[in-house]
Amino acid sequence: MYSLKNDYSEGAHPQIMEALLKTNLEQSVGYGEDEYCAQASRLIKDKIKNNNVDVHFIPGGTQTNLTAIGAFLRPYEACISCDTGHINTHETGAIEATGHKVITVKTSDGKLRKEDVISVLKDHTDEHMVKPKLVYISNSTEIGTVYTKNELKELRTVCDENNLILFMDGARLGSALATKSNDLYLDDIASMTDAFYIGGTKNGALFGEALVICNDNLKSEFRYHIKQRGAMLAKGRLLGIQFVELFRDNLFYEIGKHENEMADIIRDAIDKLGYKYLIDSESNQIFPILPNSIIEKLQQNYIFVLWSKEDERNSCIRLVTSWATKKEDVEGFVKALNDLSNN
Amino acid sequence: MYSLKNDYSEGAHPQIMEALLKTNLEQSVGYGEDEYCAQASRLIKDKIKNNNVDVHFIPGGTQTNLTAIGAFLRPYEACISCDTGHINTHETGAIEATGHKVITVKTSDGKLRKEDVISVLKDHTDEHMVKPKLVYISNSTEIGTVYTKNELKELRTVCDENNLILFMDGARLGSALATKSNDLYLDDIASMTDAFYIGGTKNGALFGEALVICNDNLKSEFRYHIKQRGAMLAKGRLLGIQFVELFRDNLFYEIGKHENEMADIIRDAIDKLGYKYLIDSESNQIFPILPNSIIEKLQQNYIFVLWSKEDERNSCIRLVTSWATKKEDVEGFVKALNDLSNN
Amino acid sequence: MYSLKNDYSEGAHPQIMEALLKTNLEQSVGYGEDEYCAQASRLIKDKIKNNNVDVHFIPGGTQTNLTAIGAFLRPYEACISCDTGHINTHETGAIEATGHKVITVKTSDGKLRKEDVISVLKDHTDEHMVKPKLVYISNSTEIGTVYTKNELKELRTVCDENNLILFMDGARLGSALATKSNDLYLDDIASMTDAFYIGGTKNGALFGEALVICNDNLKSEFRYHIKQRGAMLAKGRLLGIQFVELFRDNLFYEIGKHENEMADIIRDAIDKLGYKYLIDSESNQIFPILPNSIIEKLQQNYIFVLWSKEDERNSCIRLVTSWATKKEDVEGFVKALNDLSNN
Amino acid sequence: MYSLKNDYSEGAHPQIMEALLKTNLEQSVGYGEDEYCAQASRLIKDKIKNNNVDVHFIPGGTQTNLTAIGAFLRPYEACISCDTGHINTHETGAIEATGHKVITVKTSDGKLRKEDVISVLKDHTDEHMVKPKLVYISNSTEIGTVYTKNELKELRTVCDENNLILFMDGARLGSALATKSNDLYLDDIASMTDAFYIGGTKNGALFGEALVICNDNLKSEFRYHIKQRGAMLAKGRLLGIQFVELFRDNLFYEIGKHENEMADIIRDAIDKLGYKYLIDSESNQIFPILPNSIIEKLQQNYIFVLWSKEDERNSCIRLVTSWATKKEDVEGFVKALNDLSNN
Repeated sequence: MYSLKNDYSEGAHPQIMEALLKTNLEQSVGYGEDEYCAQASRLIKDKIKNNNVDVHFIPGGTQTNLTAIGAFLRPYEACISCDTGHINTHETGAIEATGHKVITVKTSDGKLRKEDVISVLKDHTDEHMVKPKLVYISNSTEIGTVYTKNELKELRTVCDENNLILFMDGARLGSALATKSNDLYLDDIASMTDAFYIGGTKNGALFGEALVICNDNLKSEFRYHIKQRGAMLAKGRLLGIQFVELFRDNLFYEIGKHENEMADIIRDAIDKLGYKYLIDSESNQIFPILPNSIIEKLQQNYIFVLWSKEDERNSCIRLVTSWATKKEDVEGFVKALNDLSNN
Repeated sequence: MYSLKNDYSEGAHPQIMEALLKTNLEQSVGYGEDEYCAQASRLIKDKIKNNNVDVHFIPGGTQTNLTAIGAFLRPYEACISCDTGHINTHETGAIEATGHKVITVKTSDGKLRKEDVISVLKDHTDEHMVKPKLVYISNSTEIGTVYTKNELKELRTVCDENNLILFMDGARLGSALATKSNDLYLDDIASMTDAFYIGGTKNGALFGEALVICNDNLKSEFRYHIKQRGAMLAKGRLLGIQFVELFRDNLFYEIGKHENEMADIIRDAIDKLGYKYLIDSESNQIFPILPNSIIEKLQQNYIFVLWSKEDERNSCIRLVTSWATKKEDVEGFVKALNDLSNN
Repeated sequence: MYSLKNDYSEGAHPQIMEALLKTNLEQSVGYGEDEYCAQASRLIKDKIKNNNVDVHFIPGGTQTNLTAIGAFLRPYEACISCDTGHINTHETGAIEATGHKVITVKTSDGKLRKEDVISVLKDHTDEHMVKPKLVYISNSTEIGTVYTKNELKELRTVCDENNLILFMDGARLGSALATKSNDLYLDDIASMTDAFYIGGTKNGALFGEALVICNDNLKSEFRYHIKQRGAMLAKGRLLGIQFVELFRDNLFYEIGKHENEMADIIRDAIDKLGYKYLIDSESNQIFPILPNSIIEKLQQNYIFVLWSKEDERNSCIRLVTSWATKKEDVEGFVKALNDLSNN
Repeated sequence: MYSLKNDYSEGAHPQIMEALLKTNLEQSVGYGEDEYCAQASRLIKDKIKNNNVDVHFIPGGTQTNLTAIGAFLRPYEACISCDTGHINTHETGAIEATGHKVITVKTSDGKLRKEDVISVLKDHTDEHMVKPKLVYISNSTEIGTVYTKNELKELRTVCDENNLILFMDGARLGSALATKSNDLYLDDIASMTDAFYIGGTKNGALFGEALVICNDNLKSEFRYHIKQRGAMLAKGRLLGIQFVELFRDNLFYEIGKHENEMADIIRDAIDKLGYKYLIDSESNQIFPILPNSIIEKLQQNYIFVLWSKEDERNSCIRLVTSWATKKEDVEGFVKALNDLSNN
């Protein structure tokens, strides 16, 4: 069995494992105040060409979302999110557990638009309702789509006009930035969002996300929030070491590129076979619609997510590639799909 | 500079690193539902000679405390803790952030006694006050002391008589169980507490705690709580792999023993020099009271915590040994202390 | 100016004011443990023909919802509500502030159906999502519609089949029970819901709601929740005295009947004029769609809520009658509407 | 039986009842946006000689405390309170339920001093601990003592020096301001605290507290907090009307004076009989220490709180006078005490 279920089935990129091993016996101070975290922070600031940001390393994505959003909002303030947003669907109410409502907007492609934000604002007019304050977006989105620079700019504008916080969940930012038609760079994101995070877990690290706080007003005493939420790792340097490897050269980007290239091989095969997608995507998540009979046979050798039933005879599945996906793995999958489809 | 500041200055025990490396490319399902977590769970159940417990692996200690306590209590219920308890002093109000009061009792040795619990119960009589429900203890305690079997039994009795939950924070359980006068075993703890956790972070793991839920009433749907608190690691097997190593043979106990033996070497020296302690301890934390002049000179080569001022000329420091502390390291420290004291 | 904006523009029914005045100098114990609360509780139990319920008196509706729902749910459990539900739209995230998600379903008439509940359950399958646990309905609904006995029975069945809690917000229960086609009685509601509340504020009291907990599992130590949420009135008898008056004879029902009859007079006029409604209703809330030109002129003498824009020339307004609405008041409004419409 | 148990055994002062009755049929907008609330707010601003404060009316004291403190603090910030403070002992963890720790200091007289605050600050040094931010005091205190102008000034200074919020719970402010040796006026309090509340419930109102926010930084969007906590009364004018009566002339002060005078009569008798007090007080709460035999006989005709056991033969009781306590009532009590003591 080979798994295309997600991008965290394996451990870490060998270069990261090596760094962890090499530094294993060094003594360092705890809780992220070590030299590796400092170095990783500097490397990230270099990449985003801005020293005036705060970088915090947090073990996981849900933790990062709940710590950041819980810190940024006052009690009566709420998030705006696509209905497909991770905080809305797959975090067991973690945001609500910090006291904040998630207001959802139905979208076709998992991307929030200016009009969606304005529509929510129009519906929330006074103190009998929550006050929408934070716009939550994911890039790439939970269904594999990617924001353009222009789309992000428009969201920034609507946030500026309405005093909103723009927060980007970058769990899969590595893949997003490496898509062919991507025109967004880390420095764009840092200049247009109030905060965002750079996902390590789904981009080659054992675990870990780098939260970047760009807006000065959101920075103060953030480490208190990290500690209170249980998100401050005792051996904090583990996070620093991993992000040093990801950003020392270009490993972070290379992994994203590799993921997408592996996905492209599958995409090409699906295109040639004439299957449709639930949604077009250039990132490491693919959502093809296949006949149920073929899906069942694929499942004998491959693990993937059954995403949705499309009609009586066809379903959408989700295929995900990762830093560890090898060319021979996807070629094997393609061959299996071709064989099944041509019979 | 050599650090005796805490037991998490280095990475993981080499055997653990090796296991992580060896399994790095294996694919496994996420979120702790993998075979390594299952195996680690079985090994722990074997050690405690009880299959009727639930074992959950959680990255950190504060996370474990807040997830467990937040799950076990109804909104108006409160914890009873020593004033030195970790949840009271060093978790930035993490328990209160889940909505629960921590009622504190002043103790001389960091250990909660039957009488302390009864005294709190007497003060909380009706619905105008919180309802004390969970007794929180740490073993070893935050000041290095260790519970005896009899003390634990008495706490169990008072909990039974008053329908209370007994919860043990075992961040440093490895050292506690390895102290010379310890008469508690894992199976005793499992039979006398409602839940406890076995600390990995401070006992040789990169990170990770194994929460053991013994009381059937506290088990249901616990994974929802883990996920909601952001405590469910995507690559969950990292926790399983580490605890398999700790409990496959006796690594967990050996590390505890080693820690204490290293501490013993320091204790012997301090005893011979005639210094006193803030509190006697057999575990891996030592709290000697030394002249300020000597402390200052020690600080030129050693890192440790300045615990408290005792009088104008003397202070208490905290020295902690770990899995990584080598005999030559503590001998070096002893020599330095001897030299400074004999001059 | 005359207000048809809501059912709480005036004070309390004179009979209630008189009772408050008459008892003003009596001494009684505080916090709802007085004889008036006990008597009111007995009267309500008589009306619902069931002694095995707990009755608690709470000053306001939002307070009742947040106290009850916060008490009934475990941290990861969520509510299911219509998108128009009061807890979703008009309580400033009070439920989320207790940590719980409100999952919404879009409906045409403000009433939740069996299928809505099943559809939400299908979407929430494991611990990565909240667990839907409480079905929240309002009767009458926020848009004036009323549940039938059969509809409630179906909801009860789906709740039984899926171990869900059925909770009815009865802020406007007085009007609902007095609608012409109503076939639900208090005893039906008590036998089919796990808890519900009987609204006083919108049915002739100065303030106050009577929460009735029917399900034994939800009863224990509820007064702790009331106190913790700040919902326990020091002079608790104020609530008891008011509910004694409402339920000593039939004042509660008479007020509901009066409200609806006053609304009927307006409905008749609107029907005769041929205007449509956003939604048909027999209760004390009416949602007619009128030409903007007429609305503007009505606003010179009447206060009401502009509910929604229907098209370029027409809008929906909300008219509400109360215990204090007099026949001459609604006749005056009808005359004004007729005059404006016939010109 | 006559009750000296508390200051909320009866209803409201007749003047307040009359005002409620007189305005009962008037229509007004809801939620505290009516003309009576506006007028009451103006009257209070006049009394404190400062227009630059925000006044909010909230039904009860616990509600006011939890709404204000929950609004003023960021998630990791904590309160400092005497161990006898109402938020610590008698609100069922309401503050913790909003996520904030209450750090307590043991005091002999229920009053927090500068040194207490400094001592707490010294213990809380970094992000591993909560950050003490709000100093909570009650005036009069829970044991009847009263702050002097100088004591308040010292607290203000320590708060200024450490960027802390000073919050006064004025549930019994009426009695405090009317004590013979009081040298504090409402304008002093407004100029020295960041926020405080003026208690109505315990000073002649049916219910209601007036929260005064003095610090500009704490004012913004406070009504959202009120609504979210369920503390926004639909018929909000009920609060306005009551506070208009309390502050239109000097009813608020007269009630405080009356309460204290009634208490003085009891105090005189106790002094003459030579009994001691748990704590000296000039306010409407008295804590005499009496022989158990006398207490038991008093209980045959009087209701009061058994406060604490002092030794085998003597206990402390709490006696409280209110707006409704009549001279003949306390004289009756004095006579009974004299008779029992002289036999």
